[in-house]
Amino acid sequence: MKEVNIAIAGLGVVGGEVARILCNDADRLKRQAGAKLNLVAVSARQVRDRGFSMDGISFAEDAASLANRDDIDIVVELIGRSEGVALDLCRNALKSGKHVVTANKALVAHHGHELAICAEENDTQLCFEAAVAGGIPAIKLLREGLSANDIELVTGILNGTCNYILTEMTQTGRSFDDVLAEAQAKGYAEAEPSFDVDGIDAAHKLAILAAIAYGQKIRFESVQMAGIRNISDTDIGFAADLGYVIKLLGTAARYALPTVQPCLIAQDTQLAKIDGALNAVAYKGSPVQSILCTGPGAGDGPTASAVLADIIDIARGHRAFPFGKPAASLLDADIQKPVDAGRYYLRMMVKDEIGVLNTVTAILRDHDISVESMLQKGRSDNAPVHLVFTTHSTEHAYVRAACNSLSGEKFVAGDILALPIMENV
Amino acid sequence: MKEVNIAIAGLGVVGGEVARILCNDADRLKRQAGAKLNLVAVSARQVRDRGFSMDGISFAEDAASLANRDDIDIVVELIGRSEGVALDLCRNALKSGKHVVTANKALVAHHGHELAICAEENDTQLCFEAAVAGGIPAIKLLREGLSANDIELVTGILNGTCNYILTEMTQTGRSFDDVLAEAQAKGYAEAEPSFDVDGIDAAHKLAILAAIAYGQKIRFESVQMAGIRNISDTDIGFAADLGYVIKLLGTAARYALPTVQPCLIAQDTQLAKIDGALNAVAYKGSPVQSILCTGPGAGDGPTASAVLADIIDIARGHRAFPFGKPAASLLDADIQKPVDAGRYYLRMMVKDEIGVLNTVTAILRDHDISVESMLQKGRSDNAPVHLVFTTHSTEHAYVRAACNSLSGEKFVAGDILALPIMENV
Repeated sequence: MKEVNIAIAGLGVVGGEVARILCNDADRLKRQAGAKLNLVAVSARQVRDRGFSMDGISFAEDAASLANRDDIDIVVELIGRSEGVALDLCRNALKSGKHVVTANKALVAHHGHELAICAEENDTQLCFEAAVAGGIPAIKLLREGLSANDIELVTGILNGTCNYILTEMTQTGRSFDDVLAEAQAKGYAEAEPSFDVDGIDAAHKLAILAAIAYGQKIRFESVQMAGIRNISDTDIGFAADLGYVIKLLGTAARYALPTVQPCLIAQDTQLAKIDGALNAVAYKGSPVQSILCTGPGAGDGPTASAVLADIIDIARGHRAFPFGKPAASLLDADIQKPVDAGRYYLRMMVKDEIGVLNTVTAILRDHDISVESMLQKGRSDNAPVHLVFTTHSTEHAYVRAACNSLSGEKFVAGDILALPIMENV
Repeated sequence: MKEVNIAIAGLGVVGGEVARILCNDADRLKRQAGAKLNLVAVSARQVRDRGFSMDGISFAEDAASLANRDDIDIVVELIGRSEGVALDLCRNALKSGKHVVTANKALVAHHGHELAICAEENDTQLCFEAAVAGGIPAIKLLREGLSANDIELVTGILNGTCNYILTEMTQTGRSFDDVLAEAQAKGYAEAEPSFDVDGIDAAHKLAILAAIAYGQKIRFESVQMAGIRNISDTDIGFAADLGYVIKLLGTAARYALPTVQPCLIAQDTQLAKIDGALNAVAYKGSPVQSILCTGPGAGDGPTASAVLADIIDIARGHRAFPFGKPAASLLDADIQKPVDAGRYYLRMMVKDEIGVLNTVTAILRDHDISVESMLQKGRSDNAPVHLVFTTHSTEHAYVRAACNSLSGEKFVAGDILALPIMENV
């Protein structure tokens, strides 16, 4: 029987789980892969018991050295970060004819194109299923399962931390800061939460999905990003009154810049019902119409499932271009237009004075924005009031210009929030 | 550039759509597949315009002749039925070294093992993604996407007609007969609805999923089947009162017979929210935890998406065992135990007489069945009343025996309905 020798660089929660399954479920995996999967080397910052026997497994002090060993077929990179050791290891492993499996979304988002070229030149596989949406086979679903489709839209809940926070805010009425602090205490969110709550993590994943969906060179810089820090419990409440929930969605559409931003979606849609730390990816295309897949977007088990599926693919002899097509045929993503959702939710805080409403509506009219509905909620006498509009279908640029104009008015207190209302998810 | 020659046998709604896309979207598919996909021959009962040009495409009077032509690489079988022309064509095409793509679930459920052996012996591909859940890549998701998992459970809404009927009954309170008649009038259900409403179609699909999930030889006969004819609007109402919806679920679990049956599932679960003609497949396993995929389970576009994905797989050089593993390594499914859901819903109609309730509860007690809750609803004075129980966790065999015993009582009018309450979906 064929044997495949594997090295794992990085034994954190995911690396440890991948190693444990390779060692402890070897017979089951052998039957699945049609090949014996041997864990021959690992590299980690420290040696300690991680629930598998190190017998016959060599420990490399220097992860980079794994790229040069003759007895390794697949290097599994689980070190993290887009630069440094991870990048060097992947690049050198591919150059020396090894397959690379990685869960490193930052690395792929920033260097995926270069690495894909490197893989093709050396006739090796570069696989990163685990980089997008954890246990959901989001890449294989798109690249193989929906390969015949003209993809109109890929949109998803790609960050479990943000979805957990927004779900908690929706279900309990608590504030962003309050829920974030609790999530940090429970270990659901990092002490430095920027990567999650500012949309960077979701943007890495979206860049990968967009490149595959549209046959484009991956370009992280093209992703438009907004996080959830400025979503208040008031917004969640207004959205609910209007029949919507607020979700952080990553959306890639043909002829538009991929965009990560909080959006309003109708309460009765499938995506609106994806709660807590779950991820979900929805694909719209022709001829398939619409497919939605949901599951755990992070965690040791789900991520290990994706890493191991890539290993099994390679062992089975499955060969695929990392982004679905030869790197040389991938197009430059030179589109500058942001995703245009059509309708918008606008929320501002204004002084409760005579004539304010008239001025606001005049500014909206002057920017060709037609109001669909309006809500006003006061906190107390003479205090500023929340003013919320939903608009009829309009252009992103008009909304931005109107917000800029409104921000210049003295009666406006604080930032103006403009969120798209996604109709077609 | 590589060229792949394709013949389509059967130009119904799906075959026509596959042909149209092959002809009209040839450039897009070429880029996706990395090969030119040429439709070179078709076979159908009659020649007529189907929205694509027949220039350069030969029309075969006899579908069977497609198996023997030297200029064909892939035969797409969309004729239907498990025996006859479809079987002969697939068998002979594989024997003559051609790849076969089919959407024919009955054929695969009954002859999948023989055909898989035939494909392997002739080093050709047998692909049937379109046979399960239409546009949802349910097979690729399981076979490739979740290949590393020890699958605990695969459960799904696999028949859109049944789900449409049950959804309508739930949302409008109408009867099965009434909704079925309307569905037939609208073309959602066949004039002869048995294939759908008696669970046969779902059982075909479940047999395929079970074989792949557990590495077993496909055996349609092992699937336990119950349809939705005996689900009354009363049951739907009782279920709602108890916090459940009724769905026809196909469930394959390790160490249990695959089973298609109406089940109660909690209203707040994801599967409970899959409404109308949608299909959904949920996979539970280790280490992935739980993945759910939903989309259109039938229709020309979604089914064509799956057929074309198989064609593209073949054109890309992707080779897979039809059931995920070599046919010779597939196990005999010799398990006899039905899926045991644990708790049950029992509904009977009884005469409204003194002592009836005491006798019923005695019979349940004598079969070791512990009652969790009871509902009684009378229609009018002296008329039989509905009696509904939910039980604590029990064995399928006990429930069956209790129902048999109850059926022998003179105060019981009509059939007794016993439905499992699925907790873990």
